[in-house]
Amino acid sequence: MHRLDRETLQGFSEAVLIKGGLAPQDAKIGAEVLLQSDAAGIASHGLSRLTLYMERIDLGLVNLRPDIRILSESPTTMVIDCDNGMGIANVPKIQQMGMDRVKNSGIFAVTMRNSTHYGAGSYYALKALERDLFSLLTTNTTPCMAPTGGRDVLIGTNPLTITVPAGKEKPFVLDMATSRVPMGKLQAALREKQPIPDDWALDKNGRPTTDAGEGMLGTLLPIGDYKGYGLAVLVDVLSAVLAGAAYAQDIGRLVNYDRPKPEGIGHFMLFMDISRFRPLDEFKADMDRYIRIMKNSTRTDGIKEIYLAGEIEFNKMEEYRREGIPVTESLGEQLLQLGRRLGLASDKDDFPGMAAKAAKAVAAGSV
Amino acid sequence: MHRLDRETLQGFSEAVLIKGGLAPQDAKIGAEVLLQSDAAGIASHGLSRLTLYMERIDLGLVNLRPDIRILSESPTTMVIDCDNGMGIANVPKIQQMGMDRVKNSGIFAVTMRNSTHYGAGSYYALKALERDLFSLLTTNTTPCMAPTGGRDVLIGTNPLTITVPAGKEKPFVLDMATSRVPMGKLQAALREKQPIPDDWALDKNGRPTTDAGEGMLGTLLPIGDYKGYGLAVLVDVLSAVLAGAAYAQDIGRLVNYDRPKPEGIGHFMLFMDISRFRPLDEFKADMDRYIRIMKNSTRTDGIKEIYLAGEIEFNKMEEYRREGIPVTESLGEQLLQLGRRLGLASDKDDFPGMAAKAAKAVAAGSV
Repeated sequence: MHRLDRETLQGFSEAVLIKGGLAPQDAKIGAEVLLQSDAAGIASHGLSRLTLYMERIDLGLVNLRPDIRILSESPTTMVIDCDNGMGIANVPKIQQMGMDRVKNSGIFAVTMRNSTHYGAGSYYALKALERDLFSLLTTNTTPCMAPTGGRDVLIGTNPLTITVPAGKEKPFVLDMATSRVPMGKLQAALREKQPIPDDWALDKNGRPTTDAGEGMLGTLLPIGDYKGYGLAVLVDVLSAVLAGAAYAQDIGRLVNYDRPKPEGIGHFMLFMDISRFRPLDEFKADMDRYIRIMKNSTRTDGIKEIYLAGEIEFNKMEEYRREGIPVTESLGEQLLQLGRRLGLASDKDDFPGMAAKAAKAVAAGSV
Repeated sequence: MHRLDRETLQGFSEAVLIKGGLAPQDAKIGAEVLLQSDAAGIASHGLSRLTLYMERIDLGLVNLRPDIRILSESPTTMVIDCDNGMGIANVPKIQQMGMDRVKNSGIFAVTMRNSTHYGAGSYYALKALERDLFSLLTTNTTPCMAPTGGRDVLIGTNPLTITVPAGKEKPFVLDMATSRVPMGKLQAALREKQPIPDDWALDKNGRPTTDAGEGMLGTLLPIGDYKGYGLAVLVDVLSAVLAGAAYAQDIGRLVNYDRPKPEGIGHFMLFMDISRFRPLDEFKADMDRYIRIMKNSTRTDGIKEIYLAGEIEFNKMEEYRREGIPVTESLGEQLLQLGRRLGLASDKDDFPGMAAKAAKAVAAGSV
């Protein structure tokens, strides 16, 4: 296990994305989105995705110089065409536009179409919290679930990210997929030859399975059966139908594609200025009280602490700030290969050495 | 099983609420909220609650002539103090106010405090759909869940109701509690001496139980474990913390109270004018397409039809419009006793006879 500081990994990721053809300022933002995932312990959505993003750039599946256009706007709404740009580079800028506008209107919503994977919600959550906003962010994703009663792969893990600021306590950040588990958990079980619980996935005939491989050929199950199916459809409605984006079989798959094509997915963002409802300080104090009631309540045997959503990730951020961000040997090796292909490393460099060199080069503007 | 037409049951319910002391126009609205539940097959939230509502009126727990005040408003927001009025009578009026305002602003949100149980979401969903609105409605409720890892009863079933209009297809109405099942399912299992699945509830020590009685002394489980816990907290945040309403142990319990007190709960409503994002016709056509893709997809063996959220309730409404609304013998008997106590029935009346008489009296303004 390597441990690197965030700045070095940020610089390395920027270097990779610049090599991929992104403008330096876009590479910077994209790398920040990825690194925020790693920094919060969500390794599945950070550096580990760099190789995939680069593969999609190489295949010409994303527009490196998108013409992002406001198709229509009103004092409370904005409709954006993302022109197939990289979600991780563009969606943060669009979020800023939306957050600037909510000051005047109190509530503001943005839809985005023709977009691509925007990373995990963690980055966007922190940005909304910097402004003390209530925010809701949704995106549709590559299908892996079926409607309840069906077996066709039509609905994504369709995550939603919600932020609520607090005062002295940590803010509430609910960042969750509407599937019970991500596909990665099935991949891990398959690798380790472990059975999976029978409520994670259905096989390709729509039957519950404890075989991870069968599940991967079938569909993931939503949380709470038909309720999670309903929530996943809601995310499709906001992110795709309302936004005029692709859904179901029209989505260009992010992974496991037969014929690669642009994703065409969409996103939805809603911001609310809390002070329109209650003085912000009063709200935050009440939020603190709510959080403390939960945290100080009686624990079940064996439970050391009760958490609110997002708290574990905030704790991870503190831990990794002190100790460095962990990068597994195998991920380090994968990134080293990527770096070599891109001319960021010589044959003698190891992963930390390459990362440090790339970060320096980015800082010097010489990538 | 009795089968009565909706108008008769509406009239009977109005008569009961008028006898309880509600103004006739409030009784009318309250009865409409209840009957919409029965009409959609959600028997748990309709007529069967009349006795409970009347008990709470008798105990002086609700204000029959509330002074509902707008505490603050802006072009996109409104904060309401419900003055402890009956939710089923007042929240529909507040919903109309919010829906009137969204025409100008495109998005509009309302918080309500000092309120009481507003019935099921079905009524409000239909009202929002009459205006082709996207709507989100949340309410906090009497606690019956614990935070994940805990065993104190602090969080309600905290339902959310979401509406999305469609064109030729039925609209999407997601009306769901964030708990896996309602308490009523445990009561039914206890009555029938049946074990419950071990993911429905925890016993009072926070351990999974298959004993319905133990579960009723403990806590219900949320959908998707910590994810549903997060969603339930979100509903608390919107309905109570943002609204300045009671939460957790401060709530006056709706049922099973030691010392009765007003509920003090809150609600949150958000409306969006779809045409700010896409022409409404275009949206509806795309929504129809989405719905058809789901419905026409391959079914699992043994499944006759794939449904979207709300569809089963719309089908029930059609069925009951033709066949009448079912009222079980035991509910009929309970309502007959209530009617007798209120002077709506003689000793000779049966339930249908009493209901018809009461409906006539209401129509004649002679209750």
